[in-house]
Amino acid sequence: MSAVTDPFSKCRLPGEIEALIAPGVYPFYVPVEERPGGGEAVVGGRRVLMAGSNDYLALSGDPRLKEAGARALRRLGAGNSGSRALNGTLALHQRLEEELAAFLGHEAVMVVSTGYQANLALSALFGPRDLLLADRDIHASLIDAARLGLAPLRRYRHNDLDQLERLLAEADPAAGVLVLTEGMFSVGGDLCDLPGIVKLAERHGARIVLDSAHDLGLLGPGGRGAAEHFGLQPAVDVQTLTFSKCFGTLGGAVAGPGHVIAYLRHSARAALFSASLPPACTAAALAALDVVRTEPERRLAVLSAAERLRSGLAALGFAVPAGGTPTVSLRVGDAMTCCRFWSGLLEEGVLANAMLPPGVPEGRALIRLSVTAAHTAAQVDRILDAVSAVATRLSLPAG
Amino acid sequence: MSAVTDPFSKCRLPGEIEALIAPGVYPFYVPVEERPGGGEAVVGGRRVLMAGSNDYLALSGDPRLKEAGARALRRLGAGNSGSRALNGTLALHQRLEEELAAFLGHEAVMVVSTGYQANLALSALFGPRDLLLADRDIHASLIDAARLGLAPLRRYRHNDLDQLERLLAEADPAAGVLVLTEGMFSVGGDLCDLPGIVKLAERHGARIVLDSAHDLGLLGPGGRGAAEHFGLQPAVDVQTLTFSKCFGTLGGAVAGPGHVIAYLRHSARAALFSASLPPACTAAALAALDVVRTEPERRLAVLSAAERLRSGLAALGFAVPAGGTPTVSLRVGDAMTCCRFWSGLLEEGVLANAMLPPGVPEGRALIRLSVTAAHTAAQVDRILDAVSAVATRLSLPAG
Repeated sequence: MSAVTDPFSKCRLPGEIEALIAPGVYPFYVPVEERPGGGEAVVGGRRVLMAGSNDYLALSGDPRLKEAGARALRRLGAGNSGSRALNGTLALHQRLEEELAAFLGHEAVMVVSTGYQANLALSALFGPRDLLLADRDIHASLIDAARLGLAPLRRYRHNDLDQLERLLAEADPAAGVLVLTEGMFSVGGDLCDLPGIVKLAERHGARIVLDSAHDLGLLGPGGRGAAEHFGLQPAVDVQTLTFSKCFGTLGGAVAGPGHVIAYLRHSARAALFSASLPPACTAAALAALDVVRTEPERRLAVLSAAERLRSGLAALGFAVPAGGTPTVSLRVGDAMTCCRFWSGLLEEGVLANAMLPPGVPEGRALIRLSVTAAHTAAQVDRILDAVSAVATRLSLPAG
Repeated sequence: MSAVTDPFSKCRLPGEIEALIAPGVYPFYVPVEERPGGGEAVVGGRRVLMAGSNDYLALSGDPRLKEAGARALRRLGAGNSGSRALNGTLALHQRLEEELAAFLGHEAVMVVSTGYQANLALSALFGPRDLLLADRDIHASLIDAARLGLAPLRRYRHNDLDQLERLLAEADPAAGVLVLTEGMFSVGGDLCDLPGIVKLAERHGARIVLDSAHDLGLLGPGGRGAAEHFGLQPAVDVQTLTFSKCFGTLGGAVAGPGHVIAYLRHSARAALFSASLPPACTAAALAALDVVRTEPERRLAVLSAAERLRSGLAALGFAVPAGGTPTVSLRVGDAMTCCRFWSGLLEEGVLANAMLPPGVPEGRALIRLSVTAAHTAAQVDRILDAVSAVATRLSLPAG
């Protein structure tokens, strides 16, 4: 391989990552050893508070999900060994699809094996003659779907509806226009301006694709997500879901009009060419849906923990965006400071997430904190104490 | 939405699919209700022989996988609620990666949540300055990876190494060249000419990516797949795996040099932006690896059932390509004939797969049959009897 170009020569870690490994502040791929419940995890043999999970309703460890999952696993096996289309569809998948469609008020739902693949499946809906207008902060999987569909993608500044309106006005009338947004944004924890988007989309004849990965089960009086929160469920044309946040397991789904879902079942490569969701995950998602429908108190518990976290962080001087969601990201400066913050929190017994460039803009690294329905007020206060101690050591927030 | 272009106007089922629904020969999304074991499935309330699964070692229903999966589910929960990088790595994932790397003789392994995403993760390795040369029959997920990586992709006729050699000779010396092939091809069940590919790749300084989805666990004296079968394991640069075939569950992995896997861990979007493999699937994959390492008799059982199926089909006059694998596809003509064949088999109590255009060339639809280690000789004979009965009714094989 010496005289020629080696395609593996690109395989170097960025210098920033290398720089984190030696001082022991590398914040990624930290193995969780046990999950004793109650908002805790065992890391490096030590019980710590899990303050970086998306398990907002604390359902992944719920006995009902475990029981339903174990029963389906014993009855139907560890996997389905085939795609939904050819030989991997279970009656259980169809039941989950029917119950989700009824719950959300969409005509039909297609269940796939990951949330990433639910968004990727939309590539069949995104064609070269369409125009996708997307919030700058949408999830990577929607951007990948646009690329796979060869669809032109223009991004507007985060929640900047003036810019969205200009892009809509400039759109070629021959293009089919779709507006892509998350309901609750995964990093910042803030909500999209869905009322504004709906108004603009209606005026310009655009379709709306709402990624409800982080808000399904959490927001709205019935837990249907950001669309229900705004009272705009019928205005959303296609809604994508994941079962790896509030639903506590793995998997994803696309909800929408019957003819769109039927079309996706026969053309979405991420659905056609991937093994189907295992029995345990499918049964756990059904059990989670049942909890979401019947126990609104879990939503209230996490939103109350979120309120305590948010007001505490604001009292420490951090900029806390509005939204009331369980996820808050703190701006802490450069990558090295962020990783020092992250490892300081871990020393204090709190496991958070570090978000570094290029995932976020240079110099604007984030510590992402989240709470779940399992966190008590005392635990939220311990998270705040840890943040306070580390912030003081690092002289943050600056200015 | 009347005056403007509707992006949903593309959502029509192809006429061919519509034509299958009315006469009741639509062969897709058939729900399996129960899996009583022993190579059978319950469909429409009736026990049928499952002759279309990729569960070659019949491990998805194995008590050891079920037990390991249920234990991990009870201990660690129904899901991990986060990506491997940020907060979803389990000590169990790392153990699976280490054991797979040792088993395959690769420096490192990265486990992801589906086999589709294992191949998609390679998009970080496929750049615009590379040149991908791929067998025309490679899996859709590798083609999607090329598109996501913006890498030029040229395809050679199935197993046509003369054409591959010409493409290698024509390659720009400044391009990093990768040859992509499946070990055992998923549709035809035949093997790639790995010795020939290795020779050409060495001569031209190209890297080899081997998709072992269908051969891992099945081929080679130790079950390491097509590369081991040919005694060429060290010549394969990157090997992708899935846990949804021989390993009986869900998930996938990329195996390769340490620096390549470390790079993918920090750049592969299908790994970074997707929730990690649930405890039950991870534990089931570890249990499956243990069976693959210790029970070569399962491989021999399925290869013996495959031999019986293959020679029986040849005796019925069907063209059966060489290979000895458990998967055989029969050419049955146009889409409608194929679906009549499929539904005839189901009436006879055999569930197979129908492969229709555009997935296969027009007029060359396929009935894909596969057997597993659970199929007895008597069950293989029942499959053959069903094929014979339906083929006679449809006057196949033609000519």
